[in-house]
Amino acid sequence: MPNSESTTALAESDVSTWDLRTEVLIVGFGGAGACAAIESARAGAATTVLERASGGGGTTALSTGVCYLGGGTRVQRDCGFADSVDDMLAYVRLAAGQGVDEDRIRLFCESSVEHFDWLCELGVEFKSAYEPEKTTHPFGEEGLHLSGNENVHPFAEHARPVPRGHKPRHPGEAGAYLMRVLNRAAETAGAEVLCDCRARRLVKNAAGRVVGVVARRDNRDVTIRAERGVILCAGGFIMNERMLQKHAPLLLRCNYKAGCPGDDGLGIVIGEGGGAEAINMSEGLVLNAYYPPGKHVMGILVDANGQRFIDEDAYIGRASDAMLRVADGRAWLVVDNELYGVTQVPHRLAAVEESFAALEESLGMPRGELVHTIDTYNRHARRGEDPLFHKSRDYVRPLHVPPYAALDCTTSGSIYGALTLGGLSTSALGAALDAQGQPIAGLFAAGRNAAGLCREGRTYASGLSIADATFFGRVAGRVAASGRW
Amino acid sequence: MPNSESTTALAESDVSTWDLRTEVLIVGFGGAGACAAIESARAGAATTVLERASGGGGTTALSTGVCYLGGGTRVQRDCGFADSVDDMLAYVRLAAGQGVDEDRIRLFCESSVEHFDWLCELGVEFKSAYEPEKTTHPFGEEGLHLSGNENVHPFAEHARPVPRGHKPRHPGEAGAYLMRVLNRAAETAGAEVLCDCRARRLVKNAAGRVVGVVARRDNRDVTIRAERGVILCAGGFIMNERMLQKHAPLLLRCNYKAGCPGDDGLGIVIGEGGGAEAINMSEGLVLNAYYPPGKHVMGILVDANGQRFIDEDAYIGRASDAMLRVADGRAWLVVDNELYGVTQVPHRLAAVEESFAALEESLGMPRGELVHTIDTYNRHARRGEDPLFHKSRDYVRPLHVPPYAALDCTTSGSIYGALTLGGLSTSALGAALDAQGQPIAGLFAAGRNAAGLCREGRTYASGLSIADATFFGRVAGRVAASGRW
Repeated sequence: MPNSESTTALAESDVSTWDLRTEVLIVGFGGAGACAAIESARAGAATTVLERASGGGGTTALSTGVCYLGGGTRVQRDCGFADSVDDMLAYVRLAAGQGVDEDRIRLFCESSVEHFDWLCELGVEFKSAYEPEKTTHPFGEEGLHLSGNENVHPFAEHARPVPRGHKPRHPGEAGAYLMRVLNRAAETAGAEVLCDCRARRLVKNAAGRVVGVVARRDNRDVTIRAERGVILCAGGFIMNERMLQKHAPLLLRCNYKAGCPGDDGLGIVIGEGGGAEAINMSEGLVLNAYYPPGKHVMGILVDANGQRFIDEDAYIGRASDAMLRVADGRAWLVVDNELYGVTQVPHRLAAVEESFAALEESLGMPRGELVHTIDTYNRHARRGEDPLFHKSRDYVRPLHVPPYAALDCTTSGSIYGALTLGGLSTSALGAALDAQGQPIAGLFAAGRNAAGLCREGRTYASGLSIADATFFGRVAGRVAASGRW
Repeated sequence: MPNSESTTALAESDVSTWDLRTEVLIVGFGGAGACAAIESARAGAATTVLERASGGGGTTALSTGVCYLGGGTRVQRDCGFADSVDDMLAYVRLAAGQGVDEDRIRLFCESSVEHFDWLCELGVEFKSAYEPEKTTHPFGEEGLHLSGNENVHPFAEHARPVPRGHKPRHPGEAGAYLMRVLNRAAETAGAEVLCDCRARRLVKNAAGRVVGVVARRDNRDVTIRAERGVILCAGGFIMNERMLQKHAPLLLRCNYKAGCPGDDGLGIVIGEGGGAEAINMSEGLVLNAYYPPGKHVMGILVDANGQRFIDEDAYIGRASDAMLRVADGRAWLVVDNELYGVTQVPHRLAAVEESFAALEESLGMPRGELVHTIDTYNRHARRGEDPLFHKSRDYVRPLHVPPYAALDCTTSGSIYGALTLGGLSTSALGAALDAQGQPIAGLFAAGRNAAGLCREGRTYASGLSIADATFFGRVAGRVAASGRW
């Protein structure tokens, strides 16, 4: 966006004519926007979607397409996993992170089977097959895997571990496939989609209700009246360096921005310009994929002093957050010859040596520290234990087959992906809230444009963001279409 | 504030009569507000200050009163310390933290001697005497001490260490003394002060300019017209649990709120209601005062696995941040019998034993880990070195005189103080900025109501917040009084 453009809501009295009229206007045609559009159009509201890019998909289309679903879906049952709403609630309360309201968590968990069925009815296929390997990149067609910290300390002590990562049936990354289905369904349901059209500010009437937007199309401003409401689904702000500087400077240390070009925060800024509050803005999901291969989890992560700092079987978002915050971006994965494998996002070999003494020297660590760490780790590992970091017994075994290797997981030497988890404050039903917690009439937000169900990278599970975006996108679509907000 | 009160700026057209009229209206009569009032009134503008409490002082009055000043002040020169603007610039660039603009840092450092002289002319006394002990609580009358990370790795490698903590001449905590001088000077300069009067929303005209406020006084609303501008100096939000939840949940783990009752963020929320953006909202200063006594710095801080995690000679804000973020709130200070002393904010003795093996057992740490940490520390300390965390040679000596003690520095067992460092986005001259970085005409902010010069607890130095508040309060007062914004 040109820097000089105001994003403060325009007064309706300053709109001379409305170029277009609709009932529900949705900004952004990614996972949240598409689902909002489907539900709004199906509810009978005239529904229009504005998309900046030349086609829909957004960041969801660039992802593996995994949705965090449970409570007893068809795939879970077919694969022999018993899940319940209560089990899911217990886990999602931990995974959602600080500050998430219980209403939102309940609505999500209680509706999860219904949301799964809804996706299936739209035509999204999920294969009833379980992928047992610990992975962040489920590239097969299997529909179910353990995608978060379910089996990990301290989560496993508080919630019964059940796999809930549901991957659409598509080889490799399935996000584009998922979005083709959702985008098509929105158009089939009757939503009108205007591509190459960028919303740039809201319009509010004298009573403070959001009644439309000003958008940019074909190089000129277009005013669009939305009788029932505007839903902001325009993504996060990982592509906006200035916003990261102001709100989440730690994420600037991540060298790979996990997003699409539209993730520049404009939807959040437009919402703020309409009086909504942005919250949780410092949080993000950080990803340094030292596994798969799953056997890497049997290695140990160490910092510049050769000390461990996290249980290596943590979900990658949790481990990577610790690499950045606890190890200050100076981390290495140490494996022995049996565990070494090539990561999908390749990691440089920082050192390979026949002994740990030589390895710590090669890495420039203080003498004796890595050696001590390994001695301690191996001593306990022989008994299948990890009293320091409580790694699960399944991944604890001594490192004893030379040569030993250190994979570079430093911020300067490896790929740190990041996306933002802050956005507009919303009610559980998607209404955008001001700094006092009061809803702004006619304004809604969903997906990463909002601070939703997934608030912290260190508790995150794969599929939470897409599940949040698609589910609460639907909710916002229905509520807006009702015209009662 | 009652939850139902709107803080969205009122349209001027909705103001039927103005109950009071002034030129510059200042919200809050703490360090920032008092200095803004002095400068505004001295510049000839009719100046009115609104204070919620029954008297001025704010959080500055509850503090030690230390100001971070340098570049060659009279006290620095008298004590034999050579300082320069360039040396100060080099250090403040590190201490300010992520995201601070160079303009702001330059203005602050280049004006620091002038600001010191200005405080002296008002009648704030500073004694030309140096306090050499490493302390966070300079309780003597000495006017100068090393108040931050100047001597600490990695700061000391990038900026020549010079003491810049200037404490007003007053035994014990000097903040109340400092504020008596500043509050009196504001009234002497001609500012009108309305106590027991709470600003509750801004008023904007049709052009978007802030032209006044609605305030609450004697249980009814009062409208106050401000011809030249409104300066928000109403402090941070450490007293507002809901705001902490939304923006800085980590600070909820701190059990002592370093602020006055007015630090509920209302000034920030009012600014947001006028279109300003709040930034850096997740950051705070965390304080667990394991020293003084300064000799405690020769002890070591360890986590639940008996591992060190920070150089113990770090400024307490830096060390405490690491206790919370890196050690996850489970930290202990280990000292030997020679180093043990009583802290001013008392710490519980978690364990006292004749050996480190017994100490680690008493603390429930994995066997051998604390013993190894001590072995390593002592081995290097005998040579005056600390290759793991680079503690300064002055504070490195082996721990070898039994009994050995562990002071409880856990979040559950000790006092963690906290204050917030996020607030409204401002230009270096104090103009409040919207999400696009555009100034909002007629609106200014200073002190902890703004995201100012001190943005991160982990780089902070004692006195930065008061220096920022008083200096940039003055700047905002002058700029607002000029009537050109």
